[in-house]
Amino acid sequence: MSKQAITYLQENRDALLNKLNEFLSIPSVSTDSVHKQDIADAASFLETYLTDIGFSGVQQIDTGGHPLVFAEYNEAGLDAPTVLFYGHYDVQPVDPIDEWDSDPFRPEVREGRLYARGASDDKGQVFMHLAVFEAFMRTEGYLPVNVKVCIEGEEEIGSENLYRVLHEQQDLFKADFTVISDSGMVAKNQPTILYGLKGFTGLEVTVDGPDHDIHSGLYGGAVRNPLMALSHILASMKDVDEIVTVDGFYDHVEPLSEEGRRLIQDVPGEDYQETLNIPETASEKGYTPKEHTMGRPTLEVNGMYGGYQGEGTKTIIPASATAKLTCRLVPGQDPEQIQQLLEDHIHKAAPSGVSVHVKKENLSAKAYKVSPDHPLIKKAAESYTEAFGKETVYVRMGGSIPVVEWLDAIYGAPIVLMGFGTPDDRLHSPNESFPLDSFDQGMETLAHYWTKVSQN
Amino acid sequence: MSKQAITYLQENRDALLNKLNEFLSIPSVSTDSVHKQDIADAASFLETYLTDIGFSGVQQIDTGGHPLVFAEYNEAGLDAPTVLFYGHYDVQPVDPIDEWDSDPFRPEVREGRLYARGASDDKGQVFMHLAVFEAFMRTEGYLPVNVKVCIEGEEEIGSENLYRVLHEQQDLFKADFTVISDSGMVAKNQPTILYGLKGFTGLEVTVDGPDHDIHSGLYGGAVRNPLMALSHILASMKDVDEIVTVDGFYDHVEPLSEEGRRLIQDVPGEDYQETLNIPETASEKGYTPKEHTMGRPTLEVNGMYGGYQGEGTKTIIPASATAKLTCRLVPGQDPEQIQQLLEDHIHKAAPSGVSVHVKKENLSAKAYKVSPDHPLIKKAAESYTEAFGKETVYVRMGGSIPVVEWLDAIYGAPIVLMGFGTPDDRLHSPNESFPLDSFDQGMETLAHYWTKVSQN
Repeated sequence: MSKQAITYLQENRDALLNKLNEFLSIPSVSTDSVHKQDIADAASFLETYLTDIGFSGVQQIDTGGHPLVFAEYNEAGLDAPTVLFYGHYDVQPVDPIDEWDSDPFRPEVREGRLYARGASDDKGQVFMHLAVFEAFMRTEGYLPVNVKVCIEGEEEIGSENLYRVLHEQQDLFKADFTVISDSGMVAKNQPTILYGLKGFTGLEVTVDGPDHDIHSGLYGGAVRNPLMALSHILASMKDVDEIVTVDGFYDHVEPLSEEGRRLIQDVPGEDYQETLNIPETASEKGYTPKEHTMGRPTLEVNGMYGGYQGEGTKTIIPASATAKLTCRLVPGQDPEQIQQLLEDHIHKAAPSGVSVHVKKENLSAKAYKVSPDHPLIKKAAESYTEAFGKETVYVRMGGSIPVVEWLDAIYGAPIVLMGFGTPDDRLHSPNESFPLDSFDQGMETLAHYWTKVSQN
Repeated sequence: MSKQAITYLQENRDALLNKLNEFLSIPSVSTDSVHKQDIADAASFLETYLTDIGFSGVQQIDTGGHPLVFAEYNEAGLDAPTVLFYGHYDVQPVDPIDEWDSDPFRPEVREGRLYARGASDDKGQVFMHLAVFEAFMRTEGYLPVNVKVCIEGEEEIGSENLYRVLHEQQDLFKADFTVISDSGMVAKNQPTILYGLKGFTGLEVTVDGPDHDIHSGLYGGAVRNPLMALSHILASMKDVDEIVTVDGFYDHVEPLSEEGRRLIQDVPGEDYQETLNIPETASEKGYTPKEHTMGRPTLEVNGMYGGYQGEGTKTIIPASATAKLTCRLVPGQDPEQIQQLLEDHIHKAAPSGVSVHVKKENLSAKAYKVSPDHPLIKKAAESYTEAFGKETVYVRMGGSIPVVEWLDAIYGAPIVLMGFGTPDDRLHSPNESFPLDSFDQGMETLAHYWTKVSQN
């Protein structure tokens, strides 16, 4: 049953890649309001494509922010299960733009990889699903499963509106299980299923000093320097052993069991030092880099700025300094509580002479875990192995997909995280790309999976 | 003798202000290469004006960087002293531009103040000197003193080329004493002579981590965060008591005597808390804000950046982080030695897992002091008092004028620092301005001074 669909995908590969390139050429950056029209264009692209495939009820749902694209397919019969397919069509910003070797919105194939913002995260993987649906419809004339499609435009900015829509329209999105392809494999051609994701929380801290930038000669010695004050605050939050020194941060962390450590050790990992070109790795004392990224919480400064950033010197004390912070959380940690602990710590650590303002980011998620033994997970693993010719590994990862937590909380139905990215994809970075091998074998995996799932 | 000149200045005030506005309208920002033509225009403006006044040997000296404008007047007679007048026609950058209430290069008078970049530092004060020379020439037909004019275009970027030119052409700039108006009065209408200036040194530190911005979920826990590493380094350099914690930093500092402290206390100071709109002042433990700004060394972060600075959140670990640091030094401290101590400290404080690069800024100066009892200083004080109707105060200040140290080292001749700015001028900041009172009374002060000095 999946064979004809796979043949279709092979025979129509060029046309499908052209269509994907069209999708990737739309700069649907969700965080920057300048891209409002591009977001609309990307949503329209999906609406048209889903209609062409033969989905019904295709619509853009007004979320109050960027639209959510919804569609249904109900012809697989009452015995067939209903799957909710979730993905996102928005992408991360592209800066620093001068570090891209080609235009992020003019897809280019180099050495077997497709380079473009969103090629891996998540437009490329969303497209693979739609192409597989197309293949079944064009060859068999129907899909093996009933499908609800939910592709949002605000994943990269926290999916805040989706959260509301999901809660308000619980019936619309209700399904027997969910499939998401917004993650990667631990190595190229290494089938990987995520059975755990980290949670997430974040905030922005601004330290205000004098009400304008002032001359460092005339005023140095009379005022607190906001950049120095912010450095003191940040340095007080994590020590050089990479241990977060915020009171209570680890209080409810579910400890890594010996078994958990062994599972992590078994996962083929990347050589961080080589991949990232760093002098050496740095991890929480007592844990390996793999253990820390997969199984322990983190606190990172994502951006910081204040004062003069131009060429040469400007002898000022800046009026203010700002840092953006995010945490990745593990099972046991409550995002809102952690956010509050961070805020309390920041205010306590702030020196005199400055005003400190904390802006809590409106995006947070609990960590998520599913049993690797669930039949829907096992079938996914088998499908991977058939397409890639290799045993599937089960991993917990450091990334966060807030919608996973929400769907889990609302429906309690299994969520199958089948990702096809690779560690070299440079997600969120310049020169994001996706290997064409993964594109082909990933679609084959999906074709197998829908067939297996329908043969319940 | 000065009376006619002063009358001329009063009667021609509008024309002179128009001419000053023309000068201020040229965006001669020295640190940014985009303003190369503006720098050339500002130098040409001065060349033309000096020629019109009647100076001889007017020329632009090629410094290898921005040109230096030189001119001479030798008709005051052999008995008359020769003064070197130094100033600068370059200005600081204008960012953040959106904090200006009017275009920084379209001078505008509001409530008795002239608003423009350079109105106070230093184009406005340079212009006052030229206007006074014009006034003497147009009324008396000659100047009371022989004059060498030296107006450079690189003061705001460290005067590096001037340093070389001064050393290579010592005869050209040789004079009996130097007058500089590139400073301010401690309060509006409070005649002030600087008898001490701080020295200066600086550097830029860059912390490099992964070779591109990376996903904080996938890699958080495996790598050192460059922004966090830089925060640790900076926090280790100055504590919350505002004491610089770099080994050896205070080793050769000339201590503030009880007399020195008393002199500082006698100076009418500004209310920092109110002027700068800060919750409270912050100074080195054991010293008042005035004592610290005037008599103790400082270390400031002038700018810092790394990672995402845009709207919203971007969940990355940045590839690198950069901070610009400068120190203001007091008598006894050697700039090169301090720069080396800072660099050594930074490398020692750097955590593992990152590469740290220090770029020493090519601009440094020792601190400078002159006796308040020198006759040339006393005459300046009397001139101020005649023009402003108030006793002159003598102060040490936190600002640095590198050329002062160099002229002192080369010639050993007295340097008279007669500034007319006020604490509200917002030097180096948005909305720089200069009070028109100071413009009028300052020119009157100079007219008195040249007359007094010629009556040796």
